[in-house]
Amino acid sequence: MGDTRPIGVFDSGLGGLTVARAIATELPSESIRYFGDTERCPYGERPQDEVRGFVAQLARWFDARDVKLLVVACNTATAAGLSVAQRMLDIPVLGVIVPGARAVVQATHTRRVGVLATKGTCDSGRYRRAIHALDAGVRVWQAPSPRSVEIVERAVASPHAMGRDWMGDKDYLDTEEALAVAAEDLAPLMGHGIDAVILGCTHFPLLKQVYQRVLGPGVTIVSSAEETAREVRQYLGRAGELAPEGHQAKYHFATTSPELAQFCVAGEYVFGRKLEAVEHVDVADLEALASEGWPL
Amino acid sequence: MGDTRPIGVFDSGLGGLTVARAIATELPSESIRYFGDTERCPYGERPQDEVRGFVAQLARWFDARDVKLLVVACNTATAAGLSVAQRMLDIPVLGVIVPGARAVVQATHTRRVGVLATKGTCDSGRYRRAIHALDAGVRVWQAPSPRSVEIVERAVASPHAMGRDWMGDKDYLDTEEALAVAAEDLAPLMGHGIDAVILGCTHFPLLKQVYQRVLGPGVTIVSSAEETAREVRQYLGRAGELAPEGHQAKYHFATTSPELAQFCVAGEYVFGRKLEAVEHVDVADLEALASEGWPL
Repeated sequence: MGDTRPIGVFDSGLGGLTVARAIATELPSESIRYFGDTERCPYGERPQDEVRGFVAQLARWFDARDVKLLVVACNTATAAGLSVAQRMLDIPVLGVIVPGARAVVQATHTRRVGVLATKGTCDSGRYRRAIHALDAGVRVWQAPSPRSVEIVERAVASPHAMGRDWMGDKDYLDTEEALAVAAEDLAPLMGHGIDAVILGCTHFPLLKQVYQRVLGPGVTIVSSAEETAREVRQYLGRAGELAPEGHQAKYHFATTSPELAQFCVAGEYVFGRKLEAVEHVDVADLEALASEGWPL
Repeated sequence: MGDTRPIGVFDSGLGGLTVARAIATELPSESIRYFGDTERCPYGERPQDEVRGFVAQLARWFDARDVKLLVVACNTATAAGLSVAQRMLDIPVLGVIVPGARAVVQATHTRRVGVLATKGTCDSGRYRRAIHALDAGVRVWQAPSPRSVEIVERAVASPHAMGRDWMGDKDYLDTEEALAVAAEDLAPLMGHGIDAVILGCTHFPLLKQVYQRVLGPGVTIVSSAEETAREVRQYLGRAGELAPEGHQAKYHFATTSPELAQFCVAGEYVFGRKLEAVEHVDVADLEALASEGWPL
């Protein structure tokens, strides 16, 4: 009984490892196959059509690797291409936007919420729509913060990342620069009585402490990562596809990054454990997948 | 700590007691204030605008009664007026369609699902949209069955209802007539590889055994009632508004039915316990609420 096939997790880079980590914590018997498209990261400022094409390539890549469920762990990719992947594949494909929207709607008392995301995700209006599909009476303010992504990306590349557990080491990214950027970028969320904010980018949980300082203690900050992990559990549970308890989970990582060593070092501190099986995938090979016929 | 205010549950008649019952089972410490608009039941064939007006009246009625969360436990009313109630009230208002859509999307393996509902709910397209918002790759077939509502309503009014627990007494509605109607009305769901069907009307759980016989054992039948009860738990839990464990729940019922005794007898067998506090509300008083000013 049970299904020991891995769960696929796809992100534009390392940010989705926050989601993979939440899945590994929530479901310790589940194997995970992760793909980080680091070479083409960030997706946030790219045209929606281009991102949609990337998602289609990755859907094909995962289709050949027998995963039982795929998580599009990047908000920008979810906004642009989730429905494409869902129509392409025979397995359930989950995004991070619907779980995040559920969480923020459930968390608010004032029914005034904030969305902190990349520009692409904000512009897509997907969070607003997902929130209003659940509760038409909730008011939504958005704040794009591309600079938050940059701060996290830069920190990933820094040698100071070595030896740290980012999600555990709460003060690491709590710098003066990060605080100044957050104070500026979060301004659209201030003064409206907002009491719950969704972190609509998988990079952002690493800056949660900084955001909390800016927003104040009365605001609940919700991350898509935990919500998505709970959603994965519900899907697999209801479908009878959870791996049997005690199953030895395996974690496999693939990346388009040519700097495999750096991906391993940085990834370890986002995922919270050593990345042991890491494979390089050439962007050209992904692009070749796109030219193959596919019934869309 | 905790919030002992009741949960409001609103339905066009008795069907929503299947939802109230699921909430009472899932959350035994929670008080419930139920409203059944029996005098104007069924809503299923009425114009959407009219049903929307009814929902607005009931939202006002509940607003004056200090409930902490309101469930619109009628699919037709959810489809027509959920967003109106959400914009009118300061509390969370949950419908039954989104929880049901979640459940059926999670339950299917073939990613081909059926919706069995009233004509109004089918025509509104809300289930199809809610399902596709979660998974654009799931194919949906709909089957309206107004006659199922009639069979249940007639059985409610019958003296044979006395002394029965409808949800427990599985064979009670499993008659030749019900089977013939189900075989005919469920025809649009047959032969498509559907492996999960949502009962998109609160009356229909009472006919679940009949539907299962028609659909066959390989099809999972999902009822909105349990899903909605789980959703209520999530909302209250996350907002810190669950009643403290061991709190003595009180159940209060109101109905527009002029036949209070009959409402009590029939209600008891859907709700699964005696209806002790039952109040009659005049339709004219609800209509008067509609003429009062309200900032919509």
